[in-house]
Amino acid sequence: MTGTLSPGISESSATLELASLLEPVSAEMKLVEEWLRSNLIDDSQFVASLLSQVFKAGGKRIRPGLVLLSSRATAPGFGELTPRHIILAVLTELIHTASLVHDDVIDKSSLRRGQETVNRKWNDKLAVLVGDLLFAQASICLARLMNPAIVGIYGQVLGDLCAGEIKQMNQQYVCAVDWDGYIYKSVCKTASLFSAGCHSGPILNGCGDEVVSALKDYGTNLGICFQVVDDLLDVTATASDLGKPAGGDLAQGLLTAPALFVLQREDEPARRLAELIKTRAVCREDGIAEALQLIKDNGGTDSTIALARKYAQQSREALRGLPASTYRDSLESIVDVMLIRTR
Amino acid sequence: MTGTLSPGISESSATLELASLLEPVSAEMKLVEEWLRSNLIDDSQFVASLLSQVFKAGGKRIRPGLVLLSSRATAPGFGELTPRHIILAVLTELIHTASLVHDDVIDKSSLRRGQETVNRKWNDKLAVLVGDLLFAQASICLARLMNPAIVGIYGQVLGDLCAGEIKQMNQQYVCAVDWDGYIYKSVCKTASLFSAGCHSGPILNGCGDEVVSALKDYGTNLGICFQVVDDLLDVTATASDLGKPAGGDLAQGLLTAPALFVLQREDEPARRLAELIKTRAVCREDGIAEALQLIKDNGGTDSTIALARKYAQQSREALRGLPASTYRDSLESIVDVMLIRTR
Repeated sequence: MTGTLSPGISESSATLELASLLEPVSAEMKLVEEWLRSNLIDDSQFVASLLSQVFKAGGKRIRPGLVLLSSRATAPGFGELTPRHIILAVLTELIHTASLVHDDVIDKSSLRRGQETVNRKWNDKLAVLVGDLLFAQASICLARLMNPAIVGIYGQVLGDLCAGEIKQMNQQYVCAVDWDGYIYKSVCKTASLFSAGCHSGPILNGCGDEVVSALKDYGTNLGICFQVVDDLLDVTATASDLGKPAGGDLAQGLLTAPALFVLQREDEPARRLAELIKTRAVCREDGIAEALQLIKDNGGTDSTIALARKYAQQSREALRGLPASTYRDSLESIVDVMLIRTR
Repeated sequence: MTGTLSPGISESSATLELASLLEPVSAEMKLVEEWLRSNLIDDSQFVASLLSQVFKAGGKRIRPGLVLLSSRATAPGFGELTPRHIILAVLTELIHTASLVHDDVIDKSSLRRGQETVNRKWNDKLAVLVGDLLFAQASICLARLMNPAIVGIYGQVLGDLCAGEIKQMNQQYVCAVDWDGYIYKSVCKTASLFSAGCHSGPILNGCGDEVVSALKDYGTNLGICFQVVDDLLDVTATASDLGKPAGGDLAQGLLTAPALFVLQREDEPARRLAELIKTRAVCREDGIAEALQLIKDNGGTDSTIALARKYAQQSREALRGLPASTYRDSLESIVDVMLIRTR
C-alpha cells in the first residue's frame, strides 16, 4: 500500500481506494445502505425527504465499513455476519450522521461534503430535530442489540461526543499549548466512535479480551489519526477539496495540531500566530490567510503529518495478533488510506 | 376530589395536590431524584453545573410519578418495585427534559418554569449539546432495561416527539381548522410519552394485555388532556403563573384548541381572528391582546375546558378494570389535578 502514498494523490483517490478495501464486506455494506435508506421510522413525506438529503450527502461510510471488517476479521472461521452486526454498523453511522447535523447547527456551517447543510437549506430548528431523530434511531438500534457491554460502550460514545464539543467550545481562542487536551478532544469527537465500532463486533462474536482490546486500540489510534489528518486538511486543503471553506477551525478559534506545533515554538512566528488568534484577526480573510501561511512556513504541517503517522503506526501494530485474512488486510490498508489524505 | 375543582385554585395548589398524590411512591420518587442529581455520566464541573441548572428548574416530576404509580398499581400483590422500574421512571423524565431543552432552542424561549433557559443563560450551542447529553442518558437507561417491547415503545416516543414538532413547524400561521391534526400533534408532543410511561411498568410486571392496554389508554387520554389544558393556559393564564409570556403559542402561529374553537365558527370573530393570525398581527402586543380577548369572548376557553374534561373522563374510565388500591386512587386523582389547572 505504500505505493499509494506518492504525492499528489487527492481526497477523491482516497475515497476510491477505500471503496476497494471495503470490497470483502460489500454484500453487508449494501444491507447497511438499504437500512439507512428505507428503515428509518417515519411515514411523513417531508421527513423522508429531509433524511434522504442527509444521506444523499453521503460520506465514505468508513465507520460502518470498519464495524463490518473488524466483525468479519474476528468471526469464528471468518464466517458470515448476523443481522446484529448489520445493526451495529447502521447505528454507528446514525450516531456519526446525527452528530454532524448537530455540529453544523453549532458551528453555523452552510456546506458539508460540498452540499448545503440541513440548517442552511431549511433552518436550525429542523436541523436540531433531524439530529434528534437520527439519535433516536440509533438508540433503538442499540437497545435492539440487547448486549449490556455494547450499551455501555456506545453510551460512553454519546457522552464523549457532547463532552468533546463542550470542552472545545470553552477553549475557543485560548492559545495555551495543551496537547493532552487536544488528544482528549480528538478521542471524544472522533476516536471514541471509531473505537466502539471496531471492538463491538468482536464482542458480539464472543471473542476473548485480547482480541477485543486489540481492536479497541486499533480503532482509537485510527480515530485519532483520522482527526489529526482532518485538522491538517483544514490548513492545507483548498475549499473545493474540503467541500467547505479552508481554515474554518482556526477562524473559529479552535486550536488543532498544526497551530499547536507553531505555538509551542515560542518564537516570533509563534507570537505572531497567537496575536492573530487572540485579536480575532483570524476571523477576517487577510488574518486567516496570514495565519495559515505562518503555520505552513514554520513546520506546522510537517509536524502534523508526523503526528498522524505515529498514530497510524500504533493502529497498525494493534492488529498484529489477529489471524491473517482479507479482512485484516483491509483494516491494515485503511490506515494507509488515512495517510493518503495528507498528500 | 371534585371539591378541589372549585374556582380560584391556582397552578401552585395543583402542584401541592400532585405532591400528596405521589406520597404512596415517595420512597421511589426519592431514588429517581437521586439518580437525576448524581448518576448522570460526566466528570466535568461545567457540565455538572449545566445539568444541575436544568434539573433545578425542576418541574412537577409528573411523568416519573405516573410510571411509579402505574407500576405499583399493577405489581403482583402491589409489591415493591425493582431497580428497573426506577430506571424506567428516570428515563421518562430524561426524555421529557431533553425535549424541553431542545424545544427552548427551537422556540427561542428565554424563560421556562420562571427560570432562564439554557439557550438564554448560555447559548443555543450548549443547549443543543445538553439536550443531546440527556437523550444519550435516556438511551443508555432504555437499553439497560433489556426489554424489546419497551424499546419499541420508547423508540416510537422519540420519533413522535420529532414528528410532532416538525408537523407543528410546517403549519405555523395556517388557519385551516384541522382537529385530527391538532390531536395528532398533542399525541406526538405529549401523550405518547405519558402513555409509554404508564404502560411500560405493567409490561415489566408481566401483566396481561388487558391491564397493559388499560394503562396505555389511561396515559394517552391523560396526556391529551394535559396538552389541551396547557394550550388553554397559554390563553388564560398570566405571565407570572406560566413562568413565560402568555399567548406565546398564538404569537408563534401555533393554532391550538382555544383558537380552533373560535375559527370553526366561521362568523365575524372567526374572520377577525384568522386575519390577526394571517397578517402576523399576533406577533405584536396589541394584536395578541386582541386575539386572546376574541378567544375568551367567543367561547374558545369554555369549549377547551369541555374538551379537556372529555379526555379526563376517558382517562378515568380506562382505570375501571384495575383492582382497587391506593396507587389506583392516586392515578384517578391525578386526572382531577390536571383539571384544577383549568380554574
